Amino acid sequence: MRILVLGGDGYCGWPTALHLSEAGHDVAIADNFARRQIDHELGAGSLTAIFDLRERVKAWREVSGRRIEVEVGDLLEWDFVAEVMERHRPDAVVHFAEQRSAPYSMIDRRHAVYTQHNNVIGNLNLLFAMKEFAPDAHLVKLGTMGEYGTPNIDIEEGFIEIEHNGRRDTLPFPKQPGSFYHLSKVHDSHNIHFACKIWELRATDLHQGVVYGTVTPQTERDVRLANRFDYEDVFGTVLNRFCVQAAIGHPLTVYGTGGQTRGFLDIRDTVRCIELAVENPAEHGEFRVFNQFTEEFSVERLAELVVEAAYKMGIEASIENVPNPRVELEEHYYNAKHTRLLVLGLEPHYLGDSLLDSLLNIAVENRERVDMDAVAPKVDWRKGRRKDTIRTEPEPSPV
Amino acid sequence: MRILVLGGDGYCGWPTALHLSEAGHDVAIADNFARRQIDHELGAGSLTAIFDLRERVKAWREVSGRRIEVEVGDLLEWDFVAEVMERHRPDAVVHFAEQRSAPYSMIDRRHAVYTQHNNVIGNLNLLFAMKEFAPDAHLVKLGTMGEYGTPNIDIEEGFIEIEHNGRRDTLPFPKQPGSFYHLSKVHDSHNIHFACKIWELRATDLHQGVVYGTVTPQTERDVRLANRFDYEDVFGTVLNRFCVQAAIGHPLTVYGTGGQTRGFLDIRDTVRCIELAVENPAEHGEFRVFNQFTEEFSVERLAELVVEAAYKMGIEASIENVPNPRVELEEHYYNAKHTRLLVLGLEPHYLGDSLLDSLLNIAVENRERVDMDAVAPKVDWRKGRRKDTIRTEPEPSPV
Repeated sequence: MRILVLGGDGYCGWPTALHLSEAGHDVAIADNFARRQIDHELGAGSLTAIFDLRERVKAWREVSGRRIEVEVGDLLEWDFVAEVMERHRPDAVVHFAEQRSAPYSMIDRRHAVYTQHNNVIGNLNLLFAMKEFAPDAHLVKLGTMGEYGTPNIDIEEGFIEIEHNGRRDTLPFPKQPGSFYHLSKVHDSHNIHFACKIWELRATDLHQGVVYGTVTPQTERDVRLANRFDYEDVFGTVLNRFCVQAAIGHPLTVYGTGGQTRGFLDIRDTVRCIELAVENPAEHGEFRVFNQFTEEFSVERLAELVVEAAYKMGIEASIENVPNPRVELEEHYYNAKHTRLLVLGLEPHYLGDSLLDSLLNIAVENRERVDMDAVAPKVDWRKGRRKDTIRTEPEPSPV
Repeated sequence: MRILVLGGDGYCGWPTALHLSEAGHDVAIADNFARRQIDHELGAGSLTAIFDLRERVKAWREVSGRRIEVEVGDLLEWDFVAEVMERHRPDAVVHFAEQRSAPYSMIDRRHAVYTQHNNVIGNLNLLFAMKEFAPDAHLVKLGTMGEYGTPNIDIEEGFIEIEHNGRRDTLPFPKQPGSFYHLSKVHDSHNIHFACKIWELRATDLHQGVVYGTVTPQTERDVRLANRFDYEDVFGTVLNRFCVQAAIGHPLTVYGTGGQTRGFLDIRDTVRCIELAVENPAEHGEFRVFNQFTEEFSVERLAELVVEAAYKMGIEASIENVPNPRVELEEHYYNAKHTRLLVLGLEPHYLGDSLLDSLLNIAVENRERVDMDAVAPKVDWRKGRRKDTIRTEPEPSPV
């Protein structure tokens, strides 16, 4: 299949592009490098050294013999979206090209507006471009489990049958997103659902859990193929962040009690889930939702697992419950369905010692690249970014 | 109370500003005149002659002795929003300042993007400005009954208690909006709900039905206070449009079978509902939803009522079922709750002969201002605006 991976230079997009290419698909990447730009803005960076996209695809060609085309541009620019869609006429569009950090969206008004504008309008442009130039293409859109929030009932996959006053209907599952970023994904989901209805587009909205890990079989084939590994408070996902904290001797910062429970998955399952969605497309007019995660953990439990794994490696790690910068329930019911991808053939990589060992090793190997200041929470949901953490000077040299 | 009416130059905003001013409140209007600009774009205009906002407020001062301040600017401009909020520090903000036409949002990509960008980002700016400069102010936001779509169960006011697998929760009512405009209102509702949660703002989201009528006791006190009356297919609400069609001898254009059922209200009830919401504010942290309409009608039934009322005035009107340009169910269950405003004291003006007579008379009196070409549907939900209806020449002179 011809597959366009939007945001294919990012944390999930890059390994997905490689995985799909290796699986025999004809892959093209579009990216505007917004994520690399944000590294400059925040004075932060990947724990692992990552190469430019041109070097990445060149390396991939050398090691695999397979070519990945690159388109550089922004979904906010209609001319770009239209041209790319018309030139490639893809069978599937995998859409990662959105600002993906909740804390980033909560920094201040400007970052909230950037996030919703970038994500919602970019996605709207994409829908119109698909309608015009690739109406048969299947949109595989990255959403988030965070769209649901933490309701006191079981979370279904996108839709729920409701009986009310003696009547029944199957309706979109109510959404209670917890940041301006999560809200942008809810807005997208509603827009895509509508586009499928009126234009008979076909779409799969992957409500993804929290991703951990960084390595896939493809990214480890060459140092130039390395995936990014974010460990700071704004873009680092929680398990990756804990592993780095353990490696550098920083207490694992659990927000509040740590009773917050979420769905998680290994990045090796992310790329496989995308492949399963692409290879089993939605019907025309169908808007379907898959909950894309493999296990549920509380944040406290994750911290304990990291402490145990670190201990076996001779690292003594501790846990520190810090004031929760977010507005969220710390003790709540959580039971989310996630069977649709399993039915399609997903064989999960459950969280175990080998993954934790691998992450801890990567963290230890790269510890000289860690910026100690970057791991404490800087963005408060109520007050925005703490003023004393805004960097006005160049990054200090690594220790 | 000090009340800021955003979009106070428009169809609902202007009579609301007058009504609140007459009720003794200290009213200021902010508007960017986007609606007047769209008249130029579409080559359309109000059936009634409307005066510039400066003349309107001058006339109001003359007839009532009361002053309404005017701020000219755009909610997309942060400096403007911040300055206005800081200068006025209102007790209540009534927010009409959004693109409000479903067909306009469906013209093409550009108009869809304009609608969502204008509405969602303008509303985000407003939320941040309230948080910063008027955290105690009560936001009274105009939403729409169209956010709900037409589920096969009773529609509640914003939230529904769901029992599922033996557990219960009260959750946001699932939304199935039917245009990019309606989607923008759903996005707003989610954003406002979140802002109330994290910043303890207070908001009432008025899910308004289809408004009809044009006159209020205030607007008829002087010809310069006249409210606008849209009758064309893009901004004209259905009952107003039918009355004009009857007056000019055009068949009443019912889309499809006309079985589409919606909630409706008289514009005199719109202004009263706003007053009731303002005078009974939400609590801090509370996001509440009132369904703001007084009666349900099918479109076919409305057309019949207009034909009957016209007949009594000696006008023979006919009904034409035209192909439905929208994507919507034409036969469906519809039962929406609307008790919360009644509990607060709303005494509805139910649709009756006197209102229909009044609308028909206005239409007859102004029939020389009617553009016959403007009443047929031009915007198709699947295909966008019909190319042959785009006006590239100046408006023809009125008949």
